[in-house]
Formats: sequence, C-alpha cells, structure tokens
Amino acid sequence: MIQGKVTGRVWSSKHIGSLPKGALLEVEVAGNRIIAFDPLGCATGEDVLITQGSVAAGHFTHIKAPIDALIIGSIDSK
Amino acid sequence: MIQGKVTGRVWSSKHIGSLPKGALLEVEVAGNRIIAFDPLGCATGEDVLITQGSVAAGHFTHIKAPIDALIIGSIDSK
Amino acid sequence: MIQGKVTGRVWSSKHIGSLPKGALLEVEVAGNRIIAFDPLGCATGEDVLITQGSVAAGHFTHIKAPIDALIIGSIDSK
Amino acid sequence: MIQGKVTGRVWSSKHIGSLPKGALLEVEVAGNRIIAFDPLGCATGEDVLITQGSVAAGHFTHIKAPIDALIIGSIDSK
Amino acid sequence: MIQGKVTGRVWSSKHIGSLPKGALLEVEVAGNRIIAFDPLGCATGEDVLITQGSVAAGHFTHIKAPIDALIIGSIDSK
Repeated sequence: MIQGKVTGRVWSSKHIGSLPKGALLEVEVAGNRIIAFDPLGCATGEDVLITQGSVAAGHFTHIKAPIDALIIGSIDSK
Repeated sequence: MIQGKVTGRVWSSKHIGSLPKGALLEVEVAGNRIIAFDPLGCATGEDVLITQGSVAAGHFTHIKAPIDALIIGSIDSK
Repeated sequence: MIQGKVTGRVWSSKHIGSLPKGALLEVEVAGNRIIAFDPLGCATGEDVLITQGSVAAGHFTHIKAPIDALIIGSIDSK
Repeated sequence: MIQGKVTGRVWSSKHIGSLPKGALLEVEVAGNRIIAFDPLGCATGEDVLITQGSVAAGHFTHIKAPIDALIIGSIDSK
Repeated sequence: MIQGKVTGRVWSSKHIGSLPKGALLEVEVAGNRIIAFDPLGCATGEDVLITQGSVAAGHFTHIKAPIDALIIGSIDSK
C-alpha cells in the first residue's frame, strides 16, 4: 500500500455509468497526486492508506467498479 | 485513478482484431503521456479521470478488450 | 519482487472492515516508502522481500483482502 | 496504453516452455526500453501502441502466456 | 517485459509457506534492482527477460505462488 495525505476532492458530473457513488479524494503521495475512492469519510489533511489496482476494485462486491485506488484506512497520528 | 488533460487523439489503422471501436485519446498526466480509451466523447483540453490495468479492461463486458487505460469521468471545473 | 528495509509500523484504527488483522510495516525501497502486510513478524531494520498487486491479495485464501503489498520473506544476511 | 517506437528485436533461445512463438520487439517509451510481443509484424522505427499487465496476457486465448506487454496497434503517421 | 542483467542471488530462510522452491535472482533493470524467480538456471551476468505482476504468478499452475516477477528467457547475445 502507499501512504498519502488528503489534499482535496474532485467532482465528475460527466462519468461512465459504473462509477460508484461516493467521494473521490485527491491524495498527495511522495509529491505525486492520485485520486482515490473514499469509503471512510476522510477529511483534507488526513493521512491515509491506499490500495491500488484490481485489489481496489475488489472492494465492490456487487458491482464491477472502475476503481483502481481505494482508501482502506486512516493512519493513526503518533 | 490519475487525473490528466486531453492533448490529442491517435488513430491506428493497423491493429489487432480485439481493439474496440472508439476514440483513443492522448492524455498528459504529470508530464507523461498515456493513451486512454474514451467512452465519453471528451475534447482536447478537458481534465479527465483515468483508471488503469485490468480494471480498465473490465469496462468491456461482452468482449475481452486489450485496453489498460480508460477515461471514467471528466473532472468538473471549479 | 522488491527488496526493502523495515523502518517502522503504522496503525489504523479507522479502516474498512475487510482489512485483515496483522502488522502493517513501513518499508523503504530504493528511497521510496511503501506499507506492506507482514505475516512473518519482521522487526525494524530487517531486509525483506515484498510481492505486490493482486498476487499479494492472493495470500489471503478465505477473505478478499484489500492488500496489495505483502512481505513474503526475510532476506538472509550474507 | 503507452506509445513507443520500435528500436529492435530480441531473441531468446533459452526460454520457458509457455513463451508463445512470435517476435519480441524492443520499444522505446519516453526514454525507457520495454520488450513487447508483436502479433502485427511491426518494423523498426514504427510508432506502436502497447497494452500492459494481465490485459496483455489476455490476448492469448488458448494458452496461459507469460506476456505482460503486447503491441495492439501501429499509430498512423499524421 | 523488461530486460535486465543478473547480478546475484538472495536467500530467505524465514519465508511464507507458499514461496516455491527455486532460485530468487537479483536483476538490475535500468539502474533499479528487482528480485525475480528463475525457473531456467540463469547465471550472474546473464541478460534476461522478466515478466511481472499476476502474469508471473500464472506460471505456477498447481500452487498459488506469491511471485510477481519471473524470468521467462535469457536474451541471446548478438
């Protein structure tokens, strides 16, 4: 997994039909930015753990979701 | 997912038989260029969301498409 | 696979339900940091071998785990 | 997908049994070099479109081929 | 696939039970180092072709191996 910090959110009104409802968060990971699906309700500034690829899509059990990046947890602050 | 900006389109007259009909767009992502299948009719300059790998191919339900990058949405301008 | 050195551990109290119980270790790999599930009980400073992607998730046979990085072995010191 | 330019060909007399017969081309992609299976008969200097990962292996329908990079088309010159 | 040069071998006495018996070779690929399973008996200094991801694991037909990098051939010297 990779660890990143939530920096914002994106909205997409024009999208394919299989995109699940839910938040798409911008996450900065080592200077790069990825967009991850957030099933946990994370906030800007939160440190999160992201899984990628087909493993991320596997989270959606009743639909075939086009999601290749998923927030699986929020990192506890030390 | 990754976010990028559509910069053009490519055509391929000589291709394998399983390539689905549809637009193959050039998208610039953080200085790199990838080619993504576009089921949404996006235009040059549009900011798009791309899913990659086997998750992208999963969009095609009746054929086994050789597509590893798919535009799943257009990012709303703020 | 990639080889890395364990540099710490992360905890996530707020996580999705499918996250398996077990240690999530920080591993430095060629200057980058990834978080890998550790089924072996590795310690900080240990050199480990990591497998990634759906192959990592395949380790979990009775659940569909959202794990895309797995420690599969500890490298013997020479 | 990624776009690259064919720069050569490699031969491998000593290989695993499941490697399909056919050309393995060297392709330069943004300064890096990858080796892709070519089902189309592309020539050196040709601009090609490559799909990667399990999607590439999916091209081989009767065998389980160890191919993670496949040329799916030749880019039309403008 | 990627091409690299064998630079050594690693041993792992402490490993998960599903790791197949066989050589784990260090391979340098464009300045980076990866560890690949070698079913061919390659030697240090040999130029090899590596397939990655779930395609690599697919080589193991009777077990679910945690292998995401596999040497599929040795490159013929020119």
